[in-house]
Amino acid sequence: MELTGPIVLSDNRYGKAENRIVRVYRDSARHEIRDVNVSTVLRGDFAAAYTVGDQSEVLPTDTQKQTAYAYAKITGLQPIEEYALALARHFVDRTEPVDSARIEVEEYAWQRVSVDGVPHEHTWTRRGPDVRTATVTVAGEGAAQRAWVIGGVADLVLLKSTGSEFADFLVDEFTVLEPTSDRMLATSLVAQWRFATVDGIDWDAAYTGIRQCLIEVFATQYSKALQQTLFEMGKAALESFPYLAEVRLAAPNKHHFDYDLGRFGLVNRGEVYHADDRPYGLIHATVARADAPDPGPAWTA
Amino acid sequence: MELTGPIVLSDNRYGKAENRIVRVYRDSARHEIRDVNVSTVLRGDFAAAYTVGDQSEVLPTDTQKQTAYAYAKITGLQPIEEYALALARHFVDRTEPVDSARIEVEEYAWQRVSVDGVPHEHTWTRRGPDVRTATVTVAGEGAAQRAWVIGGVADLVLLKSTGSEFADFLVDEFTVLEPTSDRMLATSLVAQWRFATVDGIDWDAAYTGIRQCLIEVFATQYSKALQQTLFEMGKAALESFPYLAEVRLAAPNKHHFDYDLGRFGLVNRGEVYHADDRPYGLIHATVARADAPDPGPAWTA
Amino acid sequence: MELTGPIVLSDNRYGKAENRIVRVYRDSARHEIRDVNVSTVLRGDFAAAYTVGDQSEVLPTDTQKQTAYAYAKITGLQPIEEYALALARHFVDRTEPVDSARIEVEEYAWQRVSVDGVPHEHTWTRRGPDVRTATVTVAGEGAAQRAWVIGGVADLVLLKSTGSEFADFLVDEFTVLEPTSDRMLATSLVAQWRFATVDGIDWDAAYTGIRQCLIEVFATQYSKALQQTLFEMGKAALESFPYLAEVRLAAPNKHHFDYDLGRFGLVNRGEVYHADDRPYGLIHATVARADAPDPGPAWTA
Amino acid sequence: MELTGPIVLSDNRYGKAENRIVRVYRDSARHEIRDVNVSTVLRGDFAAAYTVGDQSEVLPTDTQKQTAYAYAKITGLQPIEEYALALARHFVDRTEPVDSARIEVEEYAWQRVSVDGVPHEHTWTRRGPDVRTATVTVAGEGAAQRAWVIGGVADLVLLKSTGSEFADFLVDEFTVLEPTSDRMLATSLVAQWRFATVDGIDWDAAYTGIRQCLIEVFATQYSKALQQTLFEMGKAALESFPYLAEVRLAAPNKHHFDYDLGRFGLVNRGEVYHADDRPYGLIHATVARADAPDPGPAWTA
Repeated sequence: MELTGPIVLSDNRYGKAENRIVRVYRDSARHEIRDVNVSTVLRGDFAAAYTVGDQSEVLPTDTQKQTAYAYAKITGLQPIEEYALALARHFVDRTEPVDSARIEVEEYAWQRVSVDGVPHEHTWTRRGPDVRTATVTVAGEGAAQRAWVIGGVADLVLLKSTGSEFADFLVDEFTVLEPTSDRMLATSLVAQWRFATVDGIDWDAAYTGIRQCLIEVFATQYSKALQQTLFEMGKAALESFPYLAEVRLAAPNKHHFDYDLGRFGLVNRGEVYHADDRPYGLIHATVARADAPDPGPAWTA
Repeated sequence: MELTGPIVLSDNRYGKAENRIVRVYRDSARHEIRDVNVSTVLRGDFAAAYTVGDQSEVLPTDTQKQTAYAYAKITGLQPIEEYALALARHFVDRTEPVDSARIEVEEYAWQRVSVDGVPHEHTWTRRGPDVRTATVTVAGEGAAQRAWVIGGVADLVLLKSTGSEFADFLVDEFTVLEPTSDRMLATSLVAQWRFATVDGIDWDAAYTGIRQCLIEVFATQYSKALQQTLFEMGKAALESFPYLAEVRLAAPNKHHFDYDLGRFGLVNRGEVYHADDRPYGLIHATVARADAPDPGPAWTA
Repeated sequence: MELTGPIVLSDNRYGKAENRIVRVYRDSARHEIRDVNVSTVLRGDFAAAYTVGDQSEVLPTDTQKQTAYAYAKITGLQPIEEYALALARHFVDRTEPVDSARIEVEEYAWQRVSVDGVPHEHTWTRRGPDVRTATVTVAGEGAAQRAWVIGGVADLVLLKSTGSEFADFLVDEFTVLEPTSDRMLATSLVAQWRFATVDGIDWDAAYTGIRQCLIEVFATQYSKALQQTLFEMGKAALESFPYLAEVRLAAPNKHHFDYDLGRFGLVNRGEVYHADDRPYGLIHATVARADAPDPGPAWTA
Repeated sequence: MELTGPIVLSDNRYGKAENRIVRVYRDSARHEIRDVNVSTVLRGDFAAAYTVGDQSEVLPTDTQKQTAYAYAKITGLQPIEEYALALARHFVDRTEPVDSARIEVEEYAWQRVSVDGVPHEHTWTRRGPDVRTATVTVAGEGAAQRAWVIGGVADLVLLKSTGSEFADFLVDEFTVLEPTSDRMLATSLVAQWRFATVDGIDWDAAYTGIRQCLIEVFATQYSKALQQTLFEMGKAALESFPYLAEVRLAAPNKHHFDYDLGRFGLVNRGEVYHADDRPYGLIHATVARADAPDPGPAWTA
């Protein structure tokens, strides 16, 4: 099969990835800190840069970096969603060739140190591994301008030592797995939630609440499969936070295998496990409100 | 804004990720080796697993793993694209609830060792960092079944020490970058090319040829921006390999900054650079034939 | 210069690295979890394996793995120091050619989930990035047997937004750094402390106490350099925990550079920083009691 | 056991780690490139910085960085051993409190691109994963000054599909491993070789020759265990390169397990393997000339 049609540039985008910005608030002796990794992505009328090397409509990625750092002062990072909205609007409003801007933010958590039980004013330890994420898209001019915010958490490692089974599954000639009525269930969750609106949200409260909601469902919902657990987690978030349009969950099944100690005359009743690296199950689920507004480009990488 | 509509499962998929399979061919004393990382993804009628924990239609990810290893023997891995097609077809044809299967393969290259200039029969060293990739999707039953193959290369690190400029760009109040008429250009390329057909392709020859084509254009094309370089690379691949429908390229601009040695009375004429880690420019381009067949689900993660 | 003497095997050791063991305690409905990465290293009379390929004195690394998992049941992992002592003694006492055994353990922390404010009985989230470490060495037979325990913490990321300066340093022809009277100080600490005894220690309390002591000194000690901060941290640990013989600290100076926003008419009073990746300062300090007992092979990798 | 002796600073050192320097040679249209990661470590009379925060004898790590970049111009990086010797001598000779300097260099390899079979003048692809290493120590003043060079290779991934066994090993109650007369042997080698002299060595030729020697022995030596293979590799290097004093080898046994396909009616005669991640055997061996000169501080981290 040979194609002979003209060769064209189709989708394109560019930006500055992974600006590592730390913002300190020093309004009083008790400092606050926000620590982020910011990536900018611009779409628009940039075809000439690709097809003939004409940069006249190209805002350098270096400029995007400077702007990202400047907005850490102008808008600040409390919270990251407002920062990202302001930065995205800046690019769309102030740079003529830009049709839409996407700002991706990862926020790293810091825990204030206590000294003799008293919170210290300017010292923290890094708390992880989970990371707060925000992905903001702004498109269009003037009254037609629209914005989308996706919140999220990444690398949220969850484990339950019981309350999980896997049985009664489809069997074929390559199936050797034994059903189990009691297994360890562990994952490193990536969850993203799309807000139905960008107005009137208390972003920090939303993050804390949704994250806790997901964790509580993981803990309390008896699991017949990771699929079911994910669906229930997304469903609960949508029920509890009616300003959410949809929740997307991606979850590796981090396998913990019961270690065979019977060979050594030892009884292992769900006590000793091997935590395996690879391969791992990988489950994706999207849970949505049927009346969710159109996502537009919110999910377009 | 409060949503009140019913909560539904929308997109979902699942599989076994990162099966690390090594295949040795021992047909003669001169062995051959193929070393891959295989991920399987199934889509189909799996809603009950999510919504009510019913596994009766769920082929375990453990079974998918067993099947992936079995097909390394049944079909073999020469080349990976035929392996992935066979494995995907197995899941679609043999597992009733499966509507489509996606097989992602990374292949790690090994270089045969020479001993006193003679190629050794069964010893290799790993050669990288670039990795060959294949993403195969099969959907539908019987005569309506369709298949798509995307080839690719990841982590192909390229550098040219001259023949690159960046100037005459858009300037705003946050622009401090100086134009340059001679800079180092380096990237770690991820390129993927969609084949217009899955029949009659010499997959190994295609990989070798397209990879070399991309490298040669990077080397010889004077670069007015990384955008232009990427477009020319994709364009050349489409021109040279008419069975390609489109090429997608993602390329970080791995910045190498001229180091300021003038402070120490030293002249630095493009000789000493600091290779910076973050942030980095990140450019995406898709170059396509206007008469390319519909991609269908080929790019759907 | 040509050497002509006989070629000999000098130092050698071997073991099984990175056994990923998870131990659950199910004595009541309220489960407990310990999650570790265990490496075993044996030294002894293994020369024939190297020089002539004779395995008759070699305990396979697979056997070492099995033993490490078995001892997670036999001894348990509460705490890791007792586990490592028992495992090391097993190899020295039970395997004739083994002269000494070294067990290295990393322990990953899990935080019990709260549901509606109530601690959940069997669900946790991973808490990091800091990792607890233990390195145990046992050498010799019978009454001459000796043991050493080194506790530690790795990847403890600390940051203070003020209370740090760097000035009045040595200047030469390559010095361009400006002194600063107020800077951000951040590190990812690796600290190891050698116990003067292996008897009568409450290992969990020691870990919690020493870690907190190091953190508090980092917070409260005004820093004229990271060197000084490390020395004071080690000194405080030795003063507070008289069963410690010495403390070794390795600390990257994770540079946070004030971002130049003055170019954009913005004032940056220690508010916006760039967190740089590489290079980084790297400071090592050992602080010890003058009357510390001989470390023997405790620090020998 | 309580210690009461005075608390003292014992070992200490500091430097700037991971300076990512790229050097281009433009003496003709055919450019050359050397790409390195340089770390500096200084030892000397720096106690006051630790104990009382006095920086007056401390050469800032920023200055060490500037000097490392400057010497990429002054001395150049052809080869890295001469660069490291010059940089180390600079610190020892020019900075009064410095007693000894250690320079660690990793060099990343680049392969010149060919275009239509013709080597391109200024474009390369990165070639790995193996990395060339050099560790240089200079200590002392004037005529008493001494220098040590350790060359090496890291992350050299080797695999042989036959010619390896493991049998007749020690068996105890935890031994379940079956002996094998034909297995795959793979490792990711870290080798370091200490030169008996720093004068008159062709460093690039030494690196190429020693690396090839190690590879050839791995290929051709029948292996009764990885221990034996390592010893033979080190021995061959010492025999072939009489200016070497000792060779240190560290090698994970990257396990490739025969996959059990018999369950599916398939015969697997050493054809399909699972490449496991963790745990892995880890073997260390040092092979030396009996008349090797004293290593002094050459191996002191």
